[in-house]
Amino acid sequence: MKSYRKELWFNVPNRRDFINITPQVEACLRESGIQEGLALVNAMHITASVFINDDESGLHSDYDTWLERLAPHEPTSQYRHNLSGEDNADAHLKRQVMGREVVVAITGSRLDFGPWEQIFYGEFDGRRRKRVLVKIIGE
Amino acid sequence: MKSYRKELWFNVPNRRDFINITPQVEACLRESGIQEGLALVNAMHITASVFINDDESGLHSDYDTWLERLAPHEPTSQYRHNLSGEDNADAHLKRQVMGREVVVAITGSRLDFGPWEQIFYGEFDGRRRKRVLVKIIGE
Amino acid sequence: MKSYRKELWFNVPNRRDFINITPQVEACLRESGIQEGLALVNAMHITASVFINDDESGLHSDYDTWLERLAPHEPTSQYRHNLSGEDNADAHLKRQVMGREVVVAITGSRLDFGPWEQIFYGEFDGRRRKRVLVKIIGE
Repeated sequence: MKSYRKELWFNVPNRRDFINITPQVEACLRESGIQEGLALVNAMHITASVFINDDESGLHSDYDTWLERLAPHEPTSQYRHNLSGEDNADAHLKRQVMGREVVVAITGSRLDFGPWEQIFYGEFDGRRRKRVLVKIIGE
Repeated sequence: MKSYRKELWFNVPNRRDFINITPQVEACLRESGIQEGLALVNAMHITASVFINDDESGLHSDYDTWLERLAPHEPTSQYRHNLSGEDNADAHLKRQVMGREVVVAITGSRLDFGPWEQIFYGEFDGRRRKRVLVKIIGE
Repeated sequence: MKSYRKELWFNVPNRRDFINITPQVEACLRESGIQEGLALVNAMHITASVFINDDESGLHSDYDTWLERLAPHEPTSQYRHNLSGEDNADAHLKRQVMGREVVVAITGSRLDFGPWEQIFYGEFDGRRRKRVLVKIIGE
């Protein structure tokens, strides 16, 4: 069994944004030389997500509006987590809806994807350096 | 390390439905001959889910009602994604709540499940052919 | 390829609670002797979650309040699942928001975590014995 590990770093200039990281994950896969196996891609921070969906800007705007409705940033005083001086409780909630990680099949040295699947980093508390972990195991 | 891959195809006659795919995944596992490892089961389409829960029709009705409350299909004009002529933005949102994939332990040639765990395909934009990927790695 | 399996048992005295199970998962990893691979940690019951987030009591209170807003326990009669005499339909919904499982990279015999990542058992229908499965594969 082979294993491969890489950290991807991001510094998103806005509080919230979605970034297509499929090309970086594909580069990791090529570097790993793994032909058959599983790739885990996860946020290493608990106010961010990694998820798979469509690379369509209207949809990303819909996600942002919807997540703000489910778990609004303001008023920050509505969250007990923020009593400690933080203002990012909503980001911890939004991340649970969108998920921490994806696991992707590796088949024939490729990400084994359906026609529209793309991997996104979902930032909910940006403006600082944060990481995504890519771990691939297989042969 | 062995690896196994199979696509399961569905053409759900309604816009939304939940289908128990545990027997198909068990058939894949038998065909794989893998005794110890991990099985990944994921929707290959971004308006569908694979999740694990109870095979109880009342609960499935509750899921449908609840998801419609969290991310209603109508009015379709509330979503920017639908400006492109689509009407399935809600399906992209519902799928995030229910999840893209499950990872299941394989122990002694069986899906290593608790008493009520069953695997479902969750369709949120049906009436067309769509796929689920089963990938199993192990020995 | 090595594989390791262990069940962790819980009997949470309240209906809902969050329990940090990171030390137990770390003990499993030591016992497994696996240095490189993937760990799957999943609820074996369909009214509970395993998820990764912050070990902060204010945040856990925020999660509880938020999940009760998204999928309230009362009135229990609002759910068709409860017509069968159950009162835990809301727990099946809450578990979908928080997730069934996490997959964690194993690197150098350790859980490959960012600075604040901790693994939690999320109980939504407690006061009885329930299980979490830890399955680790690798070398």
